[in-house]
Amino acid sequence: MNLILLYKSDFIKGQPTKVRLTGRRHGHVLEIHKAQVNDTLSVGLLNGRMGFGTVTHLDAHALEMDISLQEDPPPKLPVTLALALPRPIMLKRILSTIATLGVGRLILFNSWRVEKSFWNSSALKSEELEAQLVLGLEQARDTVLPEVSFRRYFTPFVTKEVPQLIQNTIALVAHPNVKDVCPRHVKKPVTLFIGPEGGFIDSEVEALKAQGIKPVTLGERILRVETAVDVLLSRLF
Amino acid sequence: MNLILLYKSDFIKGQPTKVRLTGRRHGHVLEIHKAQVNDTLSVGLLNGRMGFGTVTHLDAHALEMDISLQEDPPPKLPVTLALALPRPIMLKRILSTIATLGVGRLILFNSWRVEKSFWNSSALKSEELEAQLVLGLEQARDTVLPEVSFRRYFTPFVTKEVPQLIQNTIALVAHPNVKDVCPRHVKKPVTLFIGPEGGFIDSEVEALKAQGIKPVTLGERILRVETAVDVLLSRLF
Repeated sequence: MNLILLYKSDFIKGQPTKVRLTGRRHGHVLEIHKAQVNDTLSVGLLNGRMGFGTVTHLDAHALEMDISLQEDPPPKLPVTLALALPRPIMLKRILSTIATLGVGRLILFNSWRVEKSFWNSSALKSEELEAQLVLGLEQARDTVLPEVSFRRYFTPFVTKEVPQLIQNTIALVAHPNVKDVCPRHVKKPVTLFIGPEGGFIDSEVEALKAQGIKPVTLGERILRVETAVDVLLSRLF
Repeated sequence: MNLILLYKSDFIKGQPTKVRLTGRRHGHVLEIHKAQVNDTLSVGLLNGRMGFGTVTHLDAHALEMDISLQEDPPPKLPVTLALALPRPIMLKRILSTIATLGVGRLILFNSWRVEKSFWNSSALKSEELEAQLVLGLEQARDTVLPEVSFRRYFTPFVTKEVPQLIQNTIALVAHPNVKDVCPRHVKKPVTLFIGPEGGFIDSEVEALKAQGIKPVTLGERILRVETAVDVLLSRLF
């Protein structure tokens, strides 16, 4: 936790610079930061500015800080990441990582090799999603929650929505065994499609290509989805 | 498992192209690949060549294949990765990922912020290390085990061994809050130092700098160690 993310509900009523934290964040400051009164900690307001908080009170029950928020959060990467819904345990890690890396928009879509049961996972509940994203923001020192949405049906997503989604962006789909390698350090917005474990089926790749999305490879090594996300994002930006 | 890694002990006595597998690999082929007799599967000999195996027998007890090994494994990245020993659960994932990404040599060293208990973890036993590395090789379709070694003491490692280690390489240490950004797509061998969660302490960075190792940053976002490994490697190569 390199930044303590604050919610509006943390503010002490009538005191616009004073917050009172209990629960996970309080425990972390007590046990990991081992902070004391008058120490300053990095803080940020969810979807707002960042700065520091001076500890005014800390005991076994709560942490109170007087905060000052003067900095803007870091910019997001200019990318929309469209990812075939991964298995829940991997989804959790990916949510946290994409928040850390600065992805602003994630679309989780269905694909032939996505197991149907993944769509019923509790990891897809909005409070679970947000919990993982918040971990990633706290790691990176960012405050702005990525926007996460779902597309339960591949074909209407690709044929009706994707044409507009990819406008004015470099539109790529990661796929092994193609000729073109993924470009490096592009300076334009990107829409990046990544398939499920086991990959897209051929007709899905064809459907994406029909929309003008270019298949690109990372080489002969086959990466796990969560590794591919990191590798593609850091190569592109 | 995109490649089934074979050991010399898998070969049926007196039959240089026939292997018999039980246990994890047999179960995987049965349940995930759902292979049948006459199907071909990607295989590779540990630290040797790769090719395919034709299933000659498969039942609840064992898998037998007739194999042909004609291909060389993919080249490794020209990097030595020197990583402060991470916590065991993260170490496991990193071992698998670096094997997938093609790191040939990993040195795990001590640093001020490495918890002493990490050095007593069972994850450091050679059979545990190898199990994780093998998972990574099977994912990537590679056969060559990375060389993993340990340096329990920071100062002798850095002062006595590092000068030779970094010869004729680009020597970098990942560090936040420095001016220089990590270079991209270098075409020379690299020695890359990555610190523990919480980072190197100042005197450690100074000791590395004194050997000519250049601190470089990935920007203002602070990454978890396992994310930093992926990001740095894919940016450098």
